Order: sequence, then structure tokens, then C-alpha cells
Amino acid sequence: MQRYRLTVAYEGTDFHGWQKQHPKGAAPLRTVQGVLEEAICTVVREAVALVGASRTDAGVHAEGQVAAFTTSSGIARARLLRAINGRLPADVQVSSLAPAAADFDPIADAVVKTYRYRIAHGGAAGVLPPLFDRRLVTFSPYTLDAGAMARAAAALVGTHDFASFTRVSHGRESTVRSITACTVKATSRTRLRIDVTGDGFLYNMVRIIAGTLVEVGRGRLGPEDIPRIIAQRDRDAAGPTMPPQGLCLMKVRYTPRRAK
Amino acid sequence: MQRYRLTVAYEGTDFHGWQKQHPKGAAPLRTVQGVLEEAICTVVREAVALVGASRTDAGVHAEGQVAAFTTSSGIARARLLRAINGRLPADVQVSSLAPAAADFDPIADAVVKTYRYRIAHGGAAGVLPPLFDRRLVTFSPYTLDAGAMARAAAALVGTHDFASFTRVSHGRESTVRSITACTVKATSRTRLRIDVTGDGFLYNMVRIIAGTLVEVGRGRLGPEDIPRIIAQRDRDAAGPTMPPQGLCLMKVRYTPRRAK
Repeated sequence: MQRYRLTVAYEGTDFHGWQKQHPKGAAPLRTVQGVLEEAICTVVREAVALVGASRTDAGVHAEGQVAAFTTSSGIARARLLRAINGRLPADVQVSSLAPAAADFDPIADAVVKTYRYRIAHGGAAGVLPPLFDRRLVTFSPYTLDAGAMARAAAALVGTHDFASFTRVSHGRESTVRSITACTVKATSRTRLRIDVTGDGFLYNMVRIIAGTLVEVGRGRLGPEDIPRIIAQRDRDAAGPTMPPQGLCLMKVRYTPRRAK
Repeated sequence: MQRYRLTVAYEGTDFHGWQKQHPKGAAPLRTVQGVLEEAICTVVREAVALVGASRTDAGVHAEGQVAAFTTSSGIARARLLRAINGRLPADVQVSSLAPAAADFDPIADAVVKTYRYRIAHGGAAGVLPPLFDRRLVTFSPYTLDAGAMARAAAALVGTHDFASFTRVSHGRESTVRSITACTVKATSRTRLRIDVTGDGFLYNMVRIIAGTLVEVGRGRLGPEDIPRIIAQRDRDAAGPTMPPQGLCLMKVRYTPRRAK
């Protein structure tokens, strides 16, 4: 038996997210896990269980999702990669495939993940929405101050209870997470991107962080409000949840031992 | 009456090209001219005839198509631009709108047009096809030598009979055209773009130029073959017609008097 670690890239637009979904009495939904698992099973000629590091939501993209499966197939690695990619549709691809430890767990072994949120802004000032990359970028009507957003982003770094930054606080599991880096970079006069790296993310956390930073960027909140919003542990204290299509899972990092 | 000049950008993927098409006994096809004319008519509340500088084919994109129409509407220019864009679908937009001379003709008054052809290459060597911008880039299995392609491109510059570079030589109209610039630029190890500027282009000419340069890039032709291919005035002497989705109309230039 050989376990493999895959790096997977996809455009999330036409997927119902990563995770397999089979609604009762209906056809299975088109998901990345479903499409990829099917391609792998066909190639290795046996059932495999594919596990992904992050259950990205419908519409969310990935450049560096990490997944793993174990197979008894002896197909050589380069041929396996080529055969899987040959059976995938145009909106998903495996960019690398490497042998992994038999107990490699893409979820539990992940050390940090990095997400990027892309925004085009200035709609109310006459800036046109994104055209050629409109599936990958969220358009904001406001003209955003990237400098103020960068200062607010820096205030999110650290180990905090991020209960204000998740959809529902179920009150049982811990909502404490560590953000190790959060930056805002203006890539042009009307474009910016938010990069967030952390050891784990609550449901909708990056999209709510992006929505809160947009509130700062348009002047409705200041960087100095961030500590208060964190302290309130109240979803209503933070900004809105931004739409999925601006979000992309960029990278999942593992300890060298596990990455092998 | 006021004539307006528009700069139009569109992703051609879901259009049957620029030009209006209404097959007999069937619904009109979705074309850029059709969609845009309809939006303008709704805004100015009268029938208008929209003329475009270039009848781009199905699947071909534009960043700088130029079009013109005349209206008796007195709507102020900024409001007119906003109202038209407000009625357009997400894959087409008017990036500028300016008053033009009453006799401004986007086709006859054009001095030069610039097209770009984008290629990702190296498929046979394991390079994966484009993912996020796959609608805008053509993927070639071959590993291409951009330097050789650039030398071949330079050999196309000048006033020549380009009969080898068009689909059918009907033998009546002149196939002589002037290419004022033709460059090949590697934007990464696996990406390149071909920019062609000329006073006019025959049917499929840019896509056949791109296909001929790909033959040079993969080593089946050399830059020194270009003068011979031009001299043969035979479609079979040139390379294949590349697919539409790599092609984009970048810019149409007018004399300052006409641009007004």
C-alpha cells in the first residue's frame, strides 16, 4: 500500500465546494472531492478515500489545496499524475503528487494554511467591475484605503478567541485560533489582496475578516476597533461575510517530517 | 444628433463573435454587437446602429474594440456611460465613451489595430494547461523557443501580399497588408504572447500568423522560412489556424483628427 500527497488547484465557480455531497433522492452534487476521487478510482482501478486539508465552500478557489489517498496500485508516480490529470475536467488539476507517510493526515498534520482574498474596488467612483478575472475577484463599490486595512490586519495577528469572526458560535468547541500573518497589499489603484495565514480557521472566518477589513478600508471602522471587535466575541461586532468568489486557498504547510 | 465613440471590452467565450447574426427561423445568436446595441437602444429610447472597428470571431476577446453610434438623446455623457454599463451582462463593458465627429467611421478611419495572441506551452513536457485563465490562453503541447519565434515575427513586418495567411484567397480583393510591428515576448518559462500591429487584417490572419510562429517555436520551421512562405501566396505554406480563445483585440488607433 502506498499513500500519496497531492497538491490540487481548482476554480471553484462551478463546484459545490470541496466536500462530497449526495442529497437524498437526488443526484450527487458536483464537488472537487467527488470529481477528483472518481478520476483517481478510475486510474488505480480500486475504491480510494480522498481526504482534503480544507473543506472549501462553494465558489471558493484553491491554488494549493492538499489531499491524500492510499492505494495498492503500483502505477509509477509520474504516470499516475499524468493519468489522473488526463481524467479531470478543465477546472481542476493536480499540480503535484508525492509519496507520503502511511499515516499522513492532510487535516491533522497541517501546521498553517494561507488564504488570499482578492478585491477590486471603487465601483461608486466609476471604476468598472473586473471583466476577464471576474470569477476570481470580489467587486466592492467603495474606494478602499489599503493602508488603513493593512494596519487593521496587523491587529488581527496573534492567538485570540475569534468568536466574532465566525457564523455561529455553537458554544462548545473552542473558537481560539492563532493568526500568524495578515497582510493587505494594493496591487494597483483599484485592486488589493488580503493574505491570512493561521493554524486553523473557523467557518467563514477569512470571509468575515475580509468583510471587516473592507469596513476599515471604507472608513466605517478604524484599525483601533479591531481589539474591541475581538474582545466582544459577538458576530455582530465584525463586518459582513464577503462572497466566496474572491477567496482562494493558497497553501497548506506541513512539518518537514510529514511533508516527506 | 450626437455621434459617440466607445471603447468596448469583452470576454468572447460566450459570444458568437462581434457581428449580429439572426439565422432564419431561429432566435438571434448572442453577439457583442447585438447585446450592446440593445443596451444602448434601451438607454437612449430610440433605434441606433452600432458599428464596430473589427468583426471579431466567435470566442475572440477584446480589451480595446472601438464602436460608434449616433443618437438624438441628450443624456449627459457620464450618465449615458453608466446607464449603458448598468444594462450590460458581466462579460462585456464599455470602458470609455466620448463625443466623435458626425462622420466618424470606426472601420474606415482606423489607422492600425493591435491584436495579442496568448499561448501557454510545454504540455508534452508535463506542463499543466492554464487553469484560472484557461478561457483567455491557448495551450500548446510543444515547448516553444520564443527567441526563434521573435526572429520569425520580425520577418513578417512590412507591406506584403499575405495570401498565405488567410483562409481562402478569393482572388478578387487585394491581400496586400502592412504589418508595422510583430513581437513575441516570453512572460514566463511556459507563457508567451504575440503582439501584431497592422493597417488591416485578412480573415483568420492573426491566428494563422500565430500558428506559423508556433511551427517556428517547435522547430518545424525556421525564421528564414518566413520570406518563402509569404512569397508562395499559398495557404498551405503557412502554419495551422490557432483557436480563437487565445486571441484578443487590444487597441484600434485613429488619426488625432478623428479621435477628437
